[in-house]
Amino acid sequence: MPELRKDPVVGRWVIISTERGKRPSSFASVSKRVAAKMCPFCPGSEHHTPPEVMAYRTPGSEPNQPGWTLRVIPNKYPALRVEGDLERAPKGLYDKMNGVGAHEVIIETPDHACDIVDMSDESVRDIFWTYRERMLDLERDVRIKYILVFKNHGEAAGASLEHAHSQLIATPIIPKRVAEEMEGAKRYFEFKERCIFCDIVRQEISENERLVTDFDSFIAIQPFAPRFPFETWIIPKTHQSSYMEMSDADHLTLARCFKDILSRLKLALNDPPFNFILHTRPISKESREYYHWHFEIIPKLTKVAGFEWGSGIYINPTAPEESAAFLKEMKPERVKEVFRADKTGGDSV
Amino acid sequence: MPELRKDPVVGRWVIISTERGKRPSSFASVSKRVAAKMCPFCPGSEHHTPPEVMAYRTPGSEPNQPGWTLRVIPNKYPALRVEGDLERAPKGLYDKMNGVGAHEVIIETPDHACDIVDMSDESVRDIFWTYRERMLDLERDVRIKYILVFKNHGEAAGASLEHAHSQLIATPIIPKRVAEEMEGAKRYFEFKERCIFCDIVRQEISENERLVTDFDSFIAIQPFAPRFPFETWIIPKTHQSSYMEMSDADHLTLARCFKDILSRLKLALNDPPFNFILHTRPISKESREYYHWHFEIIPKLTKVAGFEWGSGIYINPTAPEESAAFLKEMKPERVKEVFRADKTGGDSV
Repeated sequence: MPELRKDPVVGRWVIISTERGKRPSSFASVSKRVAAKMCPFCPGSEHHTPPEVMAYRTPGSEPNQPGWTLRVIPNKYPALRVEGDLERAPKGLYDKMNGVGAHEVIIETPDHACDIVDMSDESVRDIFWTYRERMLDLERDVRIKYILVFKNHGEAAGASLEHAHSQLIATPIIPKRVAEEMEGAKRYFEFKERCIFCDIVRQEISENERLVTDFDSFIAIQPFAPRFPFETWIIPKTHQSSYMEMSDADHLTLARCFKDILSRLKLALNDPPFNFILHTRPISKESREYYHWHFEIIPKLTKVAGFEWGSGIYINPTAPEESAAFLKEMKPERVKEVFRADKTGGDSV
Repeated sequence: MPELRKDPVVGRWVIISTERGKRPSSFASVSKRVAAKMCPFCPGSEHHTPPEVMAYRTPGSEPNQPGWTLRVIPNKYPALRVEGDLERAPKGLYDKMNGVGAHEVIIETPDHACDIVDMSDESVRDIFWTYRERMLDLERDVRIKYILVFKNHGEAAGASLEHAHSQLIATPIIPKRVAEEMEGAKRYFEFKERCIFCDIVRQEISENERLVTDFDSFIAIQPFAPRFPFETWIIPKTHQSSYMEMSDADHLTLARCFKDILSRLKLALNDPPFNFILHTRPISKESREYYHWHFEIIPKLTKVAGFEWGSGIYINPTAPEESAAFLKEMKPERVKEVFRADKTGGDSV
């Protein structure tokens, strides 16, 4: 019998329909890489990108020259732009405003053939530290209400370049998906006087049915009502509304937790295309008591079709208890060995 | 400068980002067809499907035998099932219930190589009439709160069989997307004492910037804040909250309007994969004054990536004014001529 499950935060129902026949091992994915003859993110191509916003560099190296280990640049084709005023205006019954904001690219490594799972813990920590640095800088702009950090890995997940990178878009509005989480969390807080995410952490640890790893300050779970097979959330165990409340030391723990989970997903699903998204509270502090930051990782294994677009109800062929059990069995330390001789696509190195 | 636009009904912001470089003619799509050696939807294969729920048949032909022009069957792999009780239950802070509902397939034509644009007006009318018939039947089930009709055309849009068909899923909950439209429309009605969709129809006709066709009882528009390039809405001009309030005669007009629009999209985008969705009011009559049924047609031309999943904000590279102008120039009567000698994929006829 299919099962309807409700996400406790946003109230979104999903259909867990395991009878439709997809077992974890039946998703043979392999990220189709996007071949590029000239990669603008590789060292030596710095002049092909807009001038860098920040970089981690070896001492003595010059900006916009090789010598960096991580580099942040404005997106060459920004969805939103830094220049201009909002000029909110009606048009009959419609509303519009100028696309003011920011759109930056975090080039995670100089090594074209490298992904987060291949990098040192410290290099991955630098990525997470960079998100914090950029947020601290951008939130001083009074036009900005929210900063969304995300990553597209693999062509099917929307990556147009294969060189490992994440992005951030700073928006002059609070995104709908975040607003929905805030409303749901607020409603719960008013009723229970507790953070709903803290309660989720407690229940997931004690039930231990959807928990993939309990990683010191973080847990990684398959959520109770996942939209997609192998959807994974990483949540800090203590109450922190904003990503910027994370302790300095925990950036390294988070890096280790991410490497662990991405290695498990890569092994379980054969290098799937995926997106990850950081949900943190808006710059305004209003939701401090009831919001709780977390990452959502979404492997791209199924197609979103008419029913999902029209209803907002997702049909998921894999129960989260099943995907959690499958991921637990993976041995993350084996990822380099398994994928070593198996590079695909147009690597330029 | 990119532009932020807000959907007046659900309050969803989209980014119209035409600078990202996609012009209408740059979407070279062609629906990848899903080849099938044996098509279970073709005449003669009736025994490969569950027994039919209804069919239009030539006099004297037997159920589940050839002789039909349109056939409705339960989905062989249903997302929701007719049997059982809801058994709504908590699990700690979570909620679930049994996946009770219905999932049916409307096989639109016996001709494997035929799409809506190729069919006679009367055959297409039969499809729209069938939606009504099935809704009337299913809404007698007290467990059902909503009936969502949709179509997936082409593999990228989620079609697993290429033989022309639409589907319906009857759900024991009101889908989130519909609930959001109802809330938005209700808020507007409380403020203005007018239906927001009626106001949209008025403004679109008078502005004539996003109107593609004004078709007797219906208009087809590119909405002001479309999530996707060439997203198209078909809206009845007079206030009707439910699809079942449409007059008998208007079923034929709707068929002609649909053929017109789907022909324009096929010509403009070279047979794109697409979804369409019918949004009608829930079975309960509460939203009768402020809700207004309509179809949404979504060509599948872009990828949904991390930013969209994480924010609910869609980045659309094509302004609706631009796609409307492009679609207006198309000559729908030319579709048969242009695509006649150009059948792709595993047609079995």
